[in-house]
Amino acid sequence: MKFSKNNNGCLYSEELEQLLTNLSPILVEYIKHNENGMKKTLNYESPKTLMNKLNFNLSQEGCGQTEILDDIVNILKYSPSTFNPGFLSKLYASTTPIGVVSELLTAVLNGNNHIYLASPVATLAEVFLSKELGKLLGYDPNICGGVTCPGGSASNNLALLTARNIYFPYVIEHGFCLSIDLQKQLNFKPPVVFTSMSSHYSILKSASMLGIGSKNIISVPTDIYGAMDPQALEDQILQHIKLGNKPFFVNVTSGTTTMGVFDPIDKIYTICKKYDIWLHIDGSLGGDMIFLKDQKEKLMPNSGFANSFTFNPHKGLGIPLQCSFLLLRDGLNIVKNSVSLNANYLFHSSDSPNSDSPSSWDIGDSTVGCGRKPDSLKLWLAWRYYGTKGFAERVQKAINHSLYLSSLIQKSENFMLFREPVSTIVCFWYIPSAVRESVKNNATDFTRLAYPQEFADATKKICEHANFNSKISIDYASTTLSHNGSLIKIPEFFRIPFNSPLVTNSFIEEILVILENTIKTTISTPIADRDINNTLSNVAKRSDDESSKIPQESKAGWSGWKYRKHGQFW
Amino acid sequence: MKFSKNNNGCLYSEELEQLLTNLSPILVEYIKHNENGMKKTLNYESPKTLMNKLNFNLSQEGCGQTEILDDIVNILKYSPSTFNPGFLSKLYASTTPIGVVSELLTAVLNGNNHIYLASPVATLAEVFLSKELGKLLGYDPNICGGVTCPGGSASNNLALLTARNIYFPYVIEHGFCLSIDLQKQLNFKPPVVFTSMSSHYSILKSASMLGIGSKNIISVPTDIYGAMDPQALEDQILQHIKLGNKPFFVNVTSGTTTMGVFDPIDKIYTICKKYDIWLHIDGSLGGDMIFLKDQKEKLMPNSGFANSFTFNPHKGLGIPLQCSFLLLRDGLNIVKNSVSLNANYLFHSSDSPNSDSPSSWDIGDSTVGCGRKPDSLKLWLAWRYYGTKGFAERVQKAINHSLYLSSLIQKSENFMLFREPVSTIVCFWYIPSAVRESVKNNATDFTRLAYPQEFADATKKICEHANFNSKISIDYASTTLSHNGSLIKIPEFFRIPFNSPLVTNSFIEEILVILENTIKTTISTPIADRDINNTLSNVAKRSDDESSKIPQESKAGWSGWKYRKHGQFW
Repeated sequence: MKFSKNNNGCLYSEELEQLLTNLSPILVEYIKHNENGMKKTLNYESPKTLMNKLNFNLSQEGCGQTEILDDIVNILKYSPSTFNPGFLSKLYASTTPIGVVSELLTAVLNGNNHIYLASPVATLAEVFLSKELGKLLGYDPNICGGVTCPGGSASNNLALLTARNIYFPYVIEHGFCLSIDLQKQLNFKPPVVFTSMSSHYSILKSASMLGIGSKNIISVPTDIYGAMDPQALEDQILQHIKLGNKPFFVNVTSGTTTMGVFDPIDKIYTICKKYDIWLHIDGSLGGDMIFLKDQKEKLMPNSGFANSFTFNPHKGLGIPLQCSFLLLRDGLNIVKNSVSLNANYLFHSSDSPNSDSPSSWDIGDSTVGCGRKPDSLKLWLAWRYYGTKGFAERVQKAINHSLYLSSLIQKSENFMLFREPVSTIVCFWYIPSAVRESVKNNATDFTRLAYPQEFADATKKICEHANFNSKISIDYASTTLSHNGSLIKIPEFFRIPFNSPLVTNSFIEEILVILENTIKTTISTPIADRDINNTLSNVAKRSDDESSKIPQESKAGWSGWKYRKHGQFW
Repeated sequence: MKFSKNNNGCLYSEELEQLLTNLSPILVEYIKHNENGMKKTLNYESPKTLMNKLNFNLSQEGCGQTEILDDIVNILKYSPSTFNPGFLSKLYASTTPIGVVSELLTAVLNGNNHIYLASPVATLAEVFLSKELGKLLGYDPNICGGVTCPGGSASNNLALLTARNIYFPYVIEHGFCLSIDLQKQLNFKPPVVFTSMSSHYSILKSASMLGIGSKNIISVPTDIYGAMDPQALEDQILQHIKLGNKPFFVNVTSGTTTMGVFDPIDKIYTICKKYDIWLHIDGSLGGDMIFLKDQKEKLMPNSGFANSFTFNPHKGLGIPLQCSFLLLRDGLNIVKNSVSLNANYLFHSSDSPNSDSPSSWDIGDSTVGCGRKPDSLKLWLAWRYYGTKGFAERVQKAINHSLYLSSLIQKSENFMLFREPVSTIVCFWYIPSAVRESVKNNATDFTRLAYPQEFADATKKICEHANFNSKISIDYASTTLSHNGSLIKIPEFFRIPFNSPLVTNSFIEEILVILENTIKTTISTPIADRDINNTLSNVAKRSDDESSKIPQESKAGWSGWKYRKHGQFW
């Protein structure tokens, strides 16, 4: 029996010593083979094949250390290596060596940040780091506070929940299931939330979860770059006030998921203030710009006025997944007052209410959960190790990488930049050189938006082939932008987010070489060889004859397609 | 600059090798000094003092490895050691050596279980383990499914959300903010949820979060043991149907937070079936009884009929926090259909809908979040290592420990058992031997419930003193039970949950010795030396003259105090 052996025969300490002695070289070797970008990021196997290749046999008797080490090697073998600079498909990449040992530490502690006595250090770290991050954002550190959540979606949800409970306090008790009488008595106005059409889906999921309903989440049009249009926001707010609704929450995105674009916080803040609306910043992707003073001022002006801010150190800063903060301008008590239940089996604050008593520091009751992983420790150690400057340099490096790739694309044969990257994501099209001039000549101003679906289909094919056969792993995305009140669907394009400092300029050069080679392999009858003018004239026709195309292409909520001239696209 | 050094100068692999070489002996030594139970579990410092003792200085320039190792040693020094068998205050304890290395592995992978391509192995492990756990619970493995969530509260919330969206599908779009017209058109009946008054607060928090409202969460009375009273449940359901409400969710607790008691699933299932209500089991604490066939049949009869089941391997099985599963009798698609948004920047399932395509295995869209820690890998490795039998033995050992402590309490001087433990938690009172007979003689049947508040206050004092000055760390709790329709508040008592296999019988003997010694130190004027009969007659008086006492002692929702004779208490 393993447990009594651990207990009486072999001690936990001895067992861990053996495991670490055997496993450490495997992990070091694994990273060594991946960090130089020479290997594939993923040995892809389909679900059914992989199920057979892995040892999913659970028996009555446990196995030995040797088999466990084999299992671990298999897990490493068939999982994508985030330490590989070719891992470019997601908004996160690998953690760092200090990230690895900080997670090792949390496992040894097995701490729980619900109450101070269970995690005194992590509790203080959480309080301290929330204030430090708040300071960078523009908050007053004497007032602001924050809390870690299991991911950006959870942080956004806690912000929306807090605001909901402040603007509609009776919902805590009654829910939104108000009787007709109560609706009249409370002068109830249905809640309305605003977020841009380019924002992350978590806002919509959260609103649906919180009983607000997806129809009360207003998808605010963006400008042609994908940033929320403040005028459209104000128009929508006024319209909903007129309808008798209560606009109470605006979500501003700092770094959209698809293109890394930033909504104009300063202009939106003015509107929120005017109409008494909670302003939340979803900085899940781009929040790490707070480490770069110039970028922060440019991309996130007046961020310190926002009521709340979601920040994911597990993305741009390389802290092991998960590490996400929700910061509150007016302190954490605003959340606590909104969601606390004071369960007395766990939280004993009523027993000793002074400010230096342990229970007055219990953070858990300010969340919607109970047990909590002490994720703050991981950010603390990394911040200590790299320094504020190290974090800033890391973020700057990701920006530089995106600028370098976009400069290469501008000179490339088969690719065309969607637009100059705003932060760390590069979006570009597959448009073969042979048809480039035709595309340009056919361009009214949104021509690139009218690029044939055929190219978008080829993009997906190229991605898939590159992922399974080359050393890089990349992804594609489509998006919808708006322009002059019309919605424009952009078919699939390449989307490469930069993150890892392991990426080098020469590796970036290789990305394009790999993609060019993949095109040669995958596009058996190159589009360029076919009658491209015919294809393009079809697109032009579609653009001229919008009305007949709308039903086929539109989705709920879209008002249609529109292609218009705009010089900034080339 | 640290990042370019990592990148160009010192490789990540080299840096990790150095860190692991230096840190591993520290961690092994730390465990060695704690696992034998000779040290204090926590070097307590008050928040303000600890803030000064730790190096919370974040500078522009990063620090070196030496300083980071000092930081780690400090974190270990001032955090409670869960590897210490004296860590008895919480429902979890340490992880195991295999748990530590499995978390180390997740950090190296930095995987994300939102889509198959980002975490193929962890995705399969999650699917596979959900079916294996479902099988133990009594589900059909060909049908059932599951998903990991960041904690038991999150699992419970996802169950309640899924049921809400099934019973009130229009809420996804409209929320509960239904206009008067829509209420009529939909024949809307307000939702009602039932959970026992001894259940975990997460159900109430979740219902409030989901827009259902705390007043629509019906706190069902328990029997005198703290288990939900099925008759009371059915009465409440009928009453709410009569009021025009729609009962749609019953939460059954398998292992209550305070006393480890199990609600009678079989009887409650019959009621749920009769009235078409979703039956959820919150097995956050006691769910690991599924590894013990006899206990499962005794404590969780008919568990396979429940629609959903929350299970926390991070509690009884020692998987590193966090590791929680929500299992679904009818498969995971029931959740996916309820919460999915199909965000196409991430989930490409529409592009390749066959069952062996990677995107058809994407789990993330079946959750309320986006990025997800691949917690399933940790359970998988531990299950492989210890075997099903090893897990069973671990759970049985915790039960045996609770039985052993309760047998010692029955023979002790200063302590009296609340009642025979049902699973792994022991609850007992401080009632000095000198007054024991008086207490017994004064007993009508609920006398022990009438034990003076003075003893409860002493209990808190003893706990605090033991935690700060002895090698054990324990906690107290109060609870409310019901009997014959009346609610009875039980003032603070000792509550020791067993979990870690590092605990031995001789260590359990020491617990009582420590507590006895603590009493000698803390109770300066022993209660026993005072006029105990006077104290007891005051209690008796209170019990006789309930009405005048209710306002002072009662809380919202209580109907008062009642002390009645019941032979099973002694």
